[in-house]
Amino acid sequence: MHKGRLEAFSDGVLAIIITIMVLELKAPHSAELSALKPLLPVLLSYILSFVYLGIYWNNHHHMFQATDHIGGAVLWANLHLLFWLSLFPFVTDWMGENHFATWPTALYGGVLFMAAMAYWNLQRVIIAQQGCDSILAKAVGKDLKGKLSPVLYAAAIAGAFVHGLIAQALYVLVALMWLVPDRRIERLLAAKKETHPNRADSAGP
Amino acid sequence: MHKGRLEAFSDGVLAIIITIMVLELKAPHSAELSALKPLLPVLLSYILSFVYLGIYWNNHHHMFQATDHIGGAVLWANLHLLFWLSLFPFVTDWMGENHFATWPTALYGGVLFMAAMAYWNLQRVIIAQQGCDSILAKAVGKDLKGKLSPVLYAAAIAGAFVHGLIAQALYVLVALMWLVPDRRIERLLAAKKETHPNRADSAGP
Amino acid sequence: MHKGRLEAFSDGVLAIIITIMVLELKAPHSAELSALKPLLPVLLSYILSFVYLGIYWNNHHHMFQATDHIGGAVLWANLHLLFWLSLFPFVTDWMGENHFATWPTALYGGVLFMAAMAYWNLQRVIIAQQGCDSILAKAVGKDLKGKLSPVLYAAAIAGAFVHGLIAQALYVLVALMWLVPDRRIERLLAAKKETHPNRADSAGP
Amino acid sequence: MHKGRLEAFSDGVLAIIITIMVLELKAPHSAELSALKPLLPVLLSYILSFVYLGIYWNNHHHMFQATDHIGGAVLWANLHLLFWLSLFPFVTDWMGENHFATWPTALYGGVLFMAAMAYWNLQRVIIAQQGCDSILAKAVGKDLKGKLSPVLYAAAIAGAFVHGLIAQALYVLVALMWLVPDRRIERLLAAKKETHPNRADSAGP
Repeated sequence: MHKGRLEAFSDGVLAIIITIMVLELKAPHSAELSALKPLLPVLLSYILSFVYLGIYWNNHHHMFQATDHIGGAVLWANLHLLFWLSLFPFVTDWMGENHFATWPTALYGGVLFMAAMAYWNLQRVIIAQQGCDSILAKAVGKDLKGKLSPVLYAAAIAGAFVHGLIAQALYVLVALMWLVPDRRIERLLAAKKETHPNRADSAGP
Repeated sequence: MHKGRLEAFSDGVLAIIITIMVLELKAPHSAELSALKPLLPVLLSYILSFVYLGIYWNNHHHMFQATDHIGGAVLWANLHLLFWLSLFPFVTDWMGENHFATWPTALYGGVLFMAAMAYWNLQRVIIAQQGCDSILAKAVGKDLKGKLSPVLYAAAIAGAFVHGLIAQALYVLVALMWLVPDRRIERLLAAKKETHPNRADSAGP
Repeated sequence: MHKGRLEAFSDGVLAIIITIMVLELKAPHSAELSALKPLLPVLLSYILSFVYLGIYWNNHHHMFQATDHIGGAVLWANLHLLFWLSLFPFVTDWMGENHFATWPTALYGGVLFMAAMAYWNLQRVIIAQQGCDSILAKAVGKDLKGKLSPVLYAAAIAGAFVHGLIAQALYVLVALMWLVPDRRIERLLAAKKETHPNRADSAGP
Repeated sequence: MHKGRLEAFSDGVLAIIITIMVLELKAPHSAELSALKPLLPVLLSYILSFVYLGIYWNNHHHMFQATDHIGGAVLWANLHLLFWLSLFPFVTDWMGENHFATWPTALYGGVLFMAAMAYWNLQRVIIAQQGCDSILAKAVGKDLKGKLSPVLYAAAIAGAFVHGLIAQALYVLVALMWLVPDRRIERLLAAKKETHPNRADSAGP
């Protein structure tokens, strides 16, 4: 089975998810600058989700570049990931409209946690099909970021009940952890470029 | 005519249908956990439709992998299928918002039935163009699942007027029937892989 | 310039236009069958627009199959066509919600007219770049359908002020005119297949 | 890394942004022609944004045609551009619904300014990866249009506080500046076609 249509379909779904979130940013009826003030938390939660979906698209892109052929199990593991990502607009909106209140903040973390699990599962299914010597298996390696993220999400969910800012800080921290490029991996990649030209550098958030 | 644009367009439409359904999951104004309770049936009907659209995408993908070139009749048979699938967000929303009441549940089955007919028709048109010896014709074979599904949808529609749960159980049953991989076919495929590398395993739901 | 991205972008826009029209089919709050009755004109106008957009996608597909390379003027002529097509959801909704009243019916015809003009212009720009001996120029030929359509749209707009049904009948007639395959052309195509494998059969509606 | 998926994802996001803007053009309940009158400013701001997004898609298309391979920094610079473009529906709607009032008009210019900066940054990142002798670097050259646009946007923002029409006139002017083809460049391109077949003609608006 070719991976082309799976990539195209995933790109389509991710492009739509990332874009329909902005529909929640409804234009106020007043033309005053002060009318934008209540939209600030909605904008902030939009930016956070935009960055997370960007990270997922990025990592999805890398993972499938290191993947040659795909079986039926991969199709369903991928749809499972897309399902959790499709809940982003809902939780983003609930969190933004309620100014980062406790329960919406915790549920946001819950969806982040489930999406990370779904990504990890997708990675596991692909590696199972390709063997432990595959490019992807080697590239993922110990997958420290992939293991640390769900722990931090769980901590954020618990923290949300102490103070919302604890959870938000952890969400931003995990996003930064994935945004900041890992120089060590890049150096390894450059060194091994001849032997593994498609080496993926990381697992999902 | 190349199949590339037909696949891309279908992927686009399916990606949008699967994603805009989540727009019906509107964030409640209250930040309490209890505010999510009325959304539970909407979420359940979203999950059901997400799985069905996933199955359709999956089978569409397989069917066109076993298809070489396409004529004008295929373009229109495909648009006919997309039309019925485009009604999924409407019936999903009506069923979810009315907590699986009789008429919405029956209409949901009606759209499932018409989509299955449209899929069967698309398959028939492709096989008519390619001949009975084509890969797709052989892969579809007796198409037991494809014939059983509409019967079960009809039973579900009738059952909806006795008790909504009968219909829901049948909708879930048909979805599972398509989700659970058919080991026998997989073994056949593996055996014949050398001669028919693109063999599709099934018709639509 | 490669035509791939222009096709992909057009497919994306058309897929979204065709799908967001269904968002106007809002699920009623009541679960009774009678609650669907007011939606019937909305559904009918949705079906009409779905068929028209299907015809446009189909013809766009054919036209670019007979096109090799594209210049900047084609990009803008294509965006101009997409602009008029993007107004379909608005006029479809206005016409459906007002039960095919005079002004919405006339405006619907106006957008059909402008889209046909934009399609005709796009075709003209492509032929101008490729020369009168190009496959597309020959395939379009006298372009009777392409010339008749705007005349019928204009007649429909005038007719809408006499009785709405005159306009609706003309809209359906033009759609059928494009849907029914032209056997004569198909025979010509089959005969000349060896020399012109990508011959497009028609202009836009 | 291949540029195919980045292009496909960008095309998807741009196609969705350009199309969901039309959702703000809500069909009035009345079927009278006069009911369309309040929609005129919404339509005008839609047309302005449609043209701007068309220019961005066009230039994005050209820029990546002159780009061979892409690194991680390009992925994020591209997402950064898409973020600012994703705010177009919001500012377009706010400006249109408030009949080009001061603050919405100024904010519209602010988003145009940030998008131009993001485009300039994306171009810079690509050139940094490819070197100053690359096709793109040469094609961009002094990039007069790219440098003039942000200056005009800034002037428009200031002008909005004097009179809204000053800002609108400048927004239209910049759009025209990018729409009108630069004959001199075209002549250069035609002359150098043999040596640089993929020469891109310009930077972003």
